[in-house]
Amino acid sequence: MASNLSFVLNKPNDVTFEERPVPKLQNPHDVLVAVNYTGICGSDVHYWVHGAIGHFVVKDPMVLGHESAGTVVEVGPEVKTLKKGDRIALEPGYPCRRCGSCLSGHYNLCPDMVFAATPPYHGTLTGFWVAPFDFCYKLPENVSLQEGALIEPLAVAVHIVKQARVQPGQSVVIMGAGPVGLLCGAVARAYGATKVVAVDIVQAKLDFALSYAATHTYMSQRVSPEENAAALIKSADLGAGADVVIDASGAEPSIQAALHVVRMGGTYVQGGMGKADITFPIMALCLKEVTARGSFRYGSGDYKLAIDLVAAGRVDVKKLVTGVVPFEDAEEAFKKVKEGQVIKILIAGPNEKVVQGMDTSVDEKKLQQAQAAGSTGCC
Amino acid sequence: MASNLSFVLNKPNDVTFEERPVPKLQNPHDVLVAVNYTGICGSDVHYWVHGAIGHFVVKDPMVLGHESAGTVVEVGPEVKTLKKGDRIALEPGYPCRRCGSCLSGHYNLCPDMVFAATPPYHGTLTGFWVAPFDFCYKLPENVSLQEGALIEPLAVAVHIVKQARVQPGQSVVIMGAGPVGLLCGAVARAYGATKVVAVDIVQAKLDFALSYAATHTYMSQRVSPEENAAALIKSADLGAGADVVIDASGAEPSIQAALHVVRMGGTYVQGGMGKADITFPIMALCLKEVTARGSFRYGSGDYKLAIDLVAAGRVDVKKLVTGVVPFEDAEEAFKKVKEGQVIKILIAGPNEKVVQGMDTSVDEKKLQQAQAAGSTGCC
Amino acid sequence: MASNLSFVLNKPNDVTFEERPVPKLQNPHDVLVAVNYTGICGSDVHYWVHGAIGHFVVKDPMVLGHESAGTVVEVGPEVKTLKKGDRIALEPGYPCRRCGSCLSGHYNLCPDMVFAATPPYHGTLTGFWVAPFDFCYKLPENVSLQEGALIEPLAVAVHIVKQARVQPGQSVVIMGAGPVGLLCGAVARAYGATKVVAVDIVQAKLDFALSYAATHTYMSQRVSPEENAAALIKSADLGAGADVVIDASGAEPSIQAALHVVRMGGTYVQGGMGKADITFPIMALCLKEVTARGSFRYGSGDYKLAIDLVAAGRVDVKKLVTGVVPFEDAEEAFKKVKEGQVIKILIAGPNEKVVQGMDTSVDEKKLQQAQAAGSTGCC
Amino acid sequence: MASNLSFVLNKPNDVTFEERPVPKLQNPHDVLVAVNYTGICGSDVHYWVHGAIGHFVVKDPMVLGHESAGTVVEVGPEVKTLKKGDRIALEPGYPCRRCGSCLSGHYNLCPDMVFAATPPYHGTLTGFWVAPFDFCYKLPENVSLQEGALIEPLAVAVHIVKQARVQPGQSVVIMGAGPVGLLCGAVARAYGATKVVAVDIVQAKLDFALSYAATHTYMSQRVSPEENAAALIKSADLGAGADVVIDASGAEPSIQAALHVVRMGGTYVQGGMGKADITFPIMALCLKEVTARGSFRYGSGDYKLAIDLVAAGRVDVKKLVTGVVPFEDAEEAFKKVKEGQVIKILIAGPNEKVVQGMDTSVDEKKLQQAQAAGSTGCC
Repeated sequence: MASNLSFVLNKPNDVTFEERPVPKLQNPHDVLVAVNYTGICGSDVHYWVHGAIGHFVVKDPMVLGHESAGTVVEVGPEVKTLKKGDRIALEPGYPCRRCGSCLSGHYNLCPDMVFAATPPYHGTLTGFWVAPFDFCYKLPENVSLQEGALIEPLAVAVHIVKQARVQPGQSVVIMGAGPVGLLCGAVARAYGATKVVAVDIVQAKLDFALSYAATHTYMSQRVSPEENAAALIKSADLGAGADVVIDASGAEPSIQAALHVVRMGGTYVQGGMGKADITFPIMALCLKEVTARGSFRYGSGDYKLAIDLVAAGRVDVKKLVTGVVPFEDAEEAFKKVKEGQVIKILIAGPNEKVVQGMDTSVDEKKLQQAQAAGSTGCC
Repeated sequence: MASNLSFVLNKPNDVTFEERPVPKLQNPHDVLVAVNYTGICGSDVHYWVHGAIGHFVVKDPMVLGHESAGTVVEVGPEVKTLKKGDRIALEPGYPCRRCGSCLSGHYNLCPDMVFAATPPYHGTLTGFWVAPFDFCYKLPENVSLQEGALIEPLAVAVHIVKQARVQPGQSVVIMGAGPVGLLCGAVARAYGATKVVAVDIVQAKLDFALSYAATHTYMSQRVSPEENAAALIKSADLGAGADVVIDASGAEPSIQAALHVVRMGGTYVQGGMGKADITFPIMALCLKEVTARGSFRYGSGDYKLAIDLVAAGRVDVKKLVTGVVPFEDAEEAFKKVKEGQVIKILIAGPNEKVVQGMDTSVDEKKLQQAQAAGSTGCC
Repeated sequence: MASNLSFVLNKPNDVTFEERPVPKLQNPHDVLVAVNYTGICGSDVHYWVHGAIGHFVVKDPMVLGHESAGTVVEVGPEVKTLKKGDRIALEPGYPCRRCGSCLSGHYNLCPDMVFAATPPYHGTLTGFWVAPFDFCYKLPENVSLQEGALIEPLAVAVHIVKQARVQPGQSVVIMGAGPVGLLCGAVARAYGATKVVAVDIVQAKLDFALSYAATHTYMSQRVSPEENAAALIKSADLGAGADVVIDASGAEPSIQAALHVVRMGGTYVQGGMGKADITFPIMALCLKEVTARGSFRYGSGDYKLAIDLVAAGRVDVKKLVTGVVPFEDAEEAFKKVKEGQVIKILIAGPNEKVVQGMDTSVDEKKLQQAQAAGSTGCC
Repeated sequence: MASNLSFVLNKPNDVTFEERPVPKLQNPHDVLVAVNYTGICGSDVHYWVHGAIGHFVVKDPMVLGHESAGTVVEVGPEVKTLKKGDRIALEPGYPCRRCGSCLSGHYNLCPDMVFAATPPYHGTLTGFWVAPFDFCYKLPENVSLQEGALIEPLAVAVHIVKQARVQPGQSVVIMGAGPVGLLCGAVARAYGATKVVAVDIVQAKLDFALSYAATHTYMSQRVSPEENAAALIKSADLGAGADVVIDASGAEPSIQAALHVVRMGGTYVQGGMGKADITFPIMALCLKEVTARGSFRYGSGDYKLAIDLVAAGRVDVKKLVTGVVPFEDAEEAFKKVKEGQVIKILIAGPNEKVVQGMDTSVDEKKLQQAQAAGSTGCC
C-alpha cells in the first residue's frame, strides 16, 4: 500500500513529517479512506502556534488536520452504503452513540467525542484514515474532491445558520468575513434570506463578500457598539433591526454590536471563538427578548445538507479556494494561513499529485483578492 | 359614583393623593373597572425613588401602580364576554394590535405599547380604570380579588418559564428568591420540573423558597462564578448541569454563574433587570450551545394560564402576601417594600374597606418570615 | 369620483353589474383603495355555479372577488404607513383582533373573520374598497399591479409551505398542478427544497409545472394509492419517501397516496379543499409518525413574504397569468376559468383601461399551454 | 446459573415452556439481566391469537413479552453506568444507531430496529436477557421492580403526550380508557393539563379513569361523530373545543369524533392501533388547521421521564396492576387479558417467587373493579 506520511505537531512551532503505519479497520462498520485533500482551519494554526486551545493541550505529538475528502479503499463487513472507490467527504468527529446527547440527536455535544486533531486524537493530514461508514458522505458526481474538502467548514456554517433558524425573506447580518462568515452568508441565502449584510474591518474582505453572497456590506468603525449598530441598520435599511445576527468573528466589539443590531424578538448566534469572557449588553437581550444561541461544530444532517447545497449549485465553495499545495508544502501552507495571505488553502494527500504547488484550476485574480483580504482567523 | 382618588408621583420621593375625574369608556370594546387591590412592584418603587427607569423618565405627575384586580362597573356596547359585577384581573399594557409584533402574537414587543405607570402613562393606584375587555380576565369563583392582584407578577413568571421551554422531568435553577423568582419556581413545578433549585444570598429567603416551591436551595458564596456553579451542581446533584437556569435577580455574578450551571444544550433565560452591560462568559454559551432568551413582561395566553394555575391549586399566590393596607397607607407600603420588610404587599382601592391596615386573613408568622427575608428588589 | 361598478352574484348562475355607492372610511385606521386588478379564484367560481360552499350560503346579492391589487386614494387620520397613490396588494380578510386566535398570532383562525366574497360579505370586484391600513401591503417599485393581484394565491401557497416547515435540501411532493399547486412548488424552491415533484392527471399541466418550478413530475395512474406511491417514489428517486407531501388537489386518491409517499417522520399538509370525509390510511400516519397539518387561507407575515419573494425574483407570478380582461368581460372570464381554459385570468377594475380584452404583455404561447392544460379547480 | 425457562409461541394459540440456553454478552457495552417481572401487552395477546400483526408474521417459534424489569447479573467491560445487582427497567427495542433516524434523535423510527417479541426477534418472557447498557434504566430506590415492568406502557403514554405537545392549562380529551389511555391521562396531568376527559363505551372503565387521572368522563353514544363531539364538548365545558385530543382506542368512530372535538389550531395524536384505513373527516383537519401526529412506541428520553414521573409520585402505575402471577401461569394470564378481566397483569420471571398466584400487595377491590371494566385491547 502507498505512503502513510503524516504531518505531525510535536510542540508549538515544531512540525515534522513522519511515515506512520497504515491504520486498520477496528470495527465491522469501519471504512479505510485514502485522504485526497485537506483544508487548514484556524484551530489547526492555533495548535501549531500555541500548542493548545483552552483546556485542550497538545502533550504528545499529534497529526494535524480535520477538513478532508478522500477515497474509500477498504470497507468492513457490515458496511452497505459505501464501496471501494467511492469519493467521500470525511466528518472528522466520532461520538459515543450512547449518551443522552447522542440518543437525542445532538451528537456534537457528546462529552466523549473523538475529534480529529483535537488532543489527544490524531488528525487527517495523513495518508490513510479509518472512520465509521456513517460519517463518510459519498460525493455526487458533480462535486469534486477539492470541493469535498470544503464540506467541513460549510457544515460549520450550515450548523450556525440552522441554530439561527433563518427563514425566507429575513435579513441576516454576519459579523466577520473570513471563511466561515462568507459561508454563513451563502447558506443564509440558500435558506431564503433576502438581505445578507457582511461586516468586517478590512475593505478587501467586504469586497470579496459582496462578490460572493452578501447583498450589503458594512465596515465597522471605531465607535461605540450602539453607534456601529445604528449606522449598520441605516446603511442596510434594516428598519427596526435585523431578524438574525450571526457572529463569525469572535471579536468583542462585534458581539456587542450584534445585540444592538438585532430586532425585537430576533435571533443572535455565536459562531466564532474568541475571549472566554466579554462585556455584554445583557439588558438588550432581556428587553428585546432576543434568542441567543451558541453553535458548536456540526451535527445530524449538516454534512448531508452541505453536500446537497454544493451539488445543487446553491453554495459555491470553489470560489474560496486560493490554492492547492502538495503534502510536502504543508508547513508553508500553514504559514500562509497564519499570515492571512489566503482565504482557504488545500493540502493534497501524500499520495496525491499536484501540479507545481498550485492547482491549475485556481484563478490567479482570486488569489490576489484573497491575499489582499487577509484572513479572519478561526476556520 | 365613588371616589377616584389616585396615588400620584410628582417627582422622586414626592407623592400625593389626588381626586381625579372618573375616566370614561373611549371605545365600544372598553370596560370601566373599579380597582379593588393593587400590588407594588419593584419598578413602582424605582420610579418613586429615582423618577426614571432607563430612558423612561417621569416628566409629568404620574399615577403609580400596575398590579391590580378590580370589578367591572360598566361595559361598552361591543363587550360580550364581561358584564357589570364581574371580578377581573387587569392586564395593564395595551398594544397597538396592528404592528408586526402584534399580528404575529408577540404583543409584548409592540413598540407602541401603552403600559400603566410607565411614563407618560398613568397607573392603576386609582379608583377607576378603563381597559379593553380582552385585557380583563374574569376570575373564577375560587380565586379572590386579592389573589387577582397577584396575577400580574405570576404572569411575569409564566412568561419567563415559557421562554425557558421547561419540560416535565427537568431541573431548573432560579437565581434570586424575590417574588418573581419564587413564582418562577412555582410555575416551573407546574410545568413538571422535578428539581427546582432556589439561589440567593439571604438564608431567610432560601428558607421561604424551600417552604414554597423549591426542592433544593443554594446560598451563593463570594467565590468565582465557576466555583459557585460547581458547588451548586454538586449540592443539588445536577450531574452535567441544569436543564434550565432562570435569572430572576439581575445581578452580574448570578448571570455569570448561570452560564456555568446550565448543561450542554440547555437553556438560560434572563428575567430580572439590572445593569445594561456586564462581564459575560460568552464562550460557555458558544461551546455548550446554550440557548439564551430574554423575557419581557407577558404576552398572549400568559394571564389566562396564570389564573388557571391559581384556580387549579397549582400555584399558591396567597402565601406571598405579607399584608394588605388601605389606600391612604400607600406611601407607607412603598416604604416597606423599599426597605425589604415584605414579600408582597397589597394596597386596597380607595373605595375598598380594609380592617385595620392589615387583612385579617394574613398569617402573622408568614409576615415575620417575610420581614426576616427582606426583598430582592424587582417585582 | 369615478365609477364603483360592481360584479354582483344574485343567485347561482345569475350575475349582474351594479353601480354601488363608493364606500367611506369607517375607522381612523382605514384606507380607501381603487381596485386595479382582481384574479378569479376557484371559490368565486364555485359560488357563481352553486351559490354556496359548505355552510356558507349566498342568501342576498353579493359582490364577488377577493384577489386584488389597487391604489390608495384616501387615508384615515391614524394611517402612517401609506399615502395617496401608493400601489398595494389587498389582503381581503379582516379578523377581530381580540380573540385568542388573533392575540396569539393566528388571525386566520379568528371565528369572527370578515372575509371578502364569503357570505354575507361583499367582495372586491368593484371600483373602491375600504380596508384597515395594516392589511394593505405597499408594492415595491419592481412589482406591478398585475403581479399584486397574484399575491393572494401566492400567500395561500406561502401559508401551506410554512405549515409544512419545508427546510433546505428536502424533497417536496405536490399533489395537483393547478395555480396553488404550482405556486407551492415555487415557494418550496424558495424555501430551499432541492426536489419538487409535481403530480397531476393531465400531462399538459405537468409539462407546465416542469417549466415552472418542479424538478420532477409524476402522472397519477388508475392504480391503488400504495402502487401510485411506490411508482412515484421510484420515478423521483425519493429513497425512503418524501420529506414533505402537500395536497393541493383535494382529491381523495391524491390524499391517500400522500400518506404512502411521505417518509417516516415526514410531514403532510392538506391545502386543497374537497370532500368532507374520505377513506384515509390512518395507520400509515400512526406507524410512520407522520405530522399532518391543515392549511387555511393565510396569516401573519404571509402577504409580506409573498411580496418579498416576487420582488426578489424568487417566484415568478406573471408566468401564471393567461390574460387580463376589462371589467365588463368579468362573466366571460368566469366562464373561461370554469371551463379550464386558463391558469389565472385577471379582471381589470371598472376604472382601469385594458387594451382589447387581453393584456399585451401576455404571451400567446403561454395562453395556449394553459388552455391545453385546463385547471384544477380550487384557487 | 438459574433457569432460563421461556414462554414460547409456536403458532396461533399454541404456546409452550422451553428451557433455553442462557444468552451471552455479545458486545462490551452489553449487560446480562435476570428478568423479574413482565407485563402483558395487547400486541402479545394479538400474536398469541392471530400469529401476526400486519406484515409481522410469526413463522418460527418466538418467545413472547416485552414489558419487563430485571436485575443486572453481569456487565460488559465498557459498561460504566451499571453494576451487578442494579434493578432496571428494560427498554426492549434496539436501533441501529447509524441511520438518519437514529442520528437525528428519532431512533424509534429506525428501519433496522430489533424489537423484543416482534418477529423474528424473541421476547422477554424468559429467565435472562442481554441488552446494551444504555437501554437499561436503573430504578430509583423508591420504585419497585413491579412498577419497573410498567415503565414500558408508561413510556408509550409519555411518547404520545410528547407528540401532542401538551402544555399547562390545556384541555386534553383521551379516546379509550384502556391501560395506555389511562396512562396518557396521568401523563397529561403531569404535563399540566387542567382538564383531562376520558372517553369510552364501558361505564366501569370511565369510573376507574375518574378515580385515576381524569377530571371528566364521557360515555360515547351511538350517534354521529359530530353529535358525540358536540355532546362531549358541552358535557366537559370545552368551549370552542379541546386543545388536544389523543386517540388511544384505534376505533374508527373515536377517531372521527376526535377531529370534531379538537379546537381550531388544536392537536390530535393517533396513539392506538386499529384498521389500516378508515373514513376520516379530512376537511375538519384542513379548515381548523389541526396538527395531527402519529405516535409509534417511544424514543429518546421517554423511559427516563417515565421513571422520573413514577419516582416523583406524579404517575401511580401500581394502581393499574390487577395481579401478579408466577411464570408457570403465563398462559392463564394471557387468557385473562384476552377476556378483559384485568387492567394489567404481571408475570413473574421463572426465577422469581410469587405467593400463590397473586401478589399480596394487590387490592382485591381494585381487581374487581378491573374485572368489571374489561380491557380495551392494545397495550
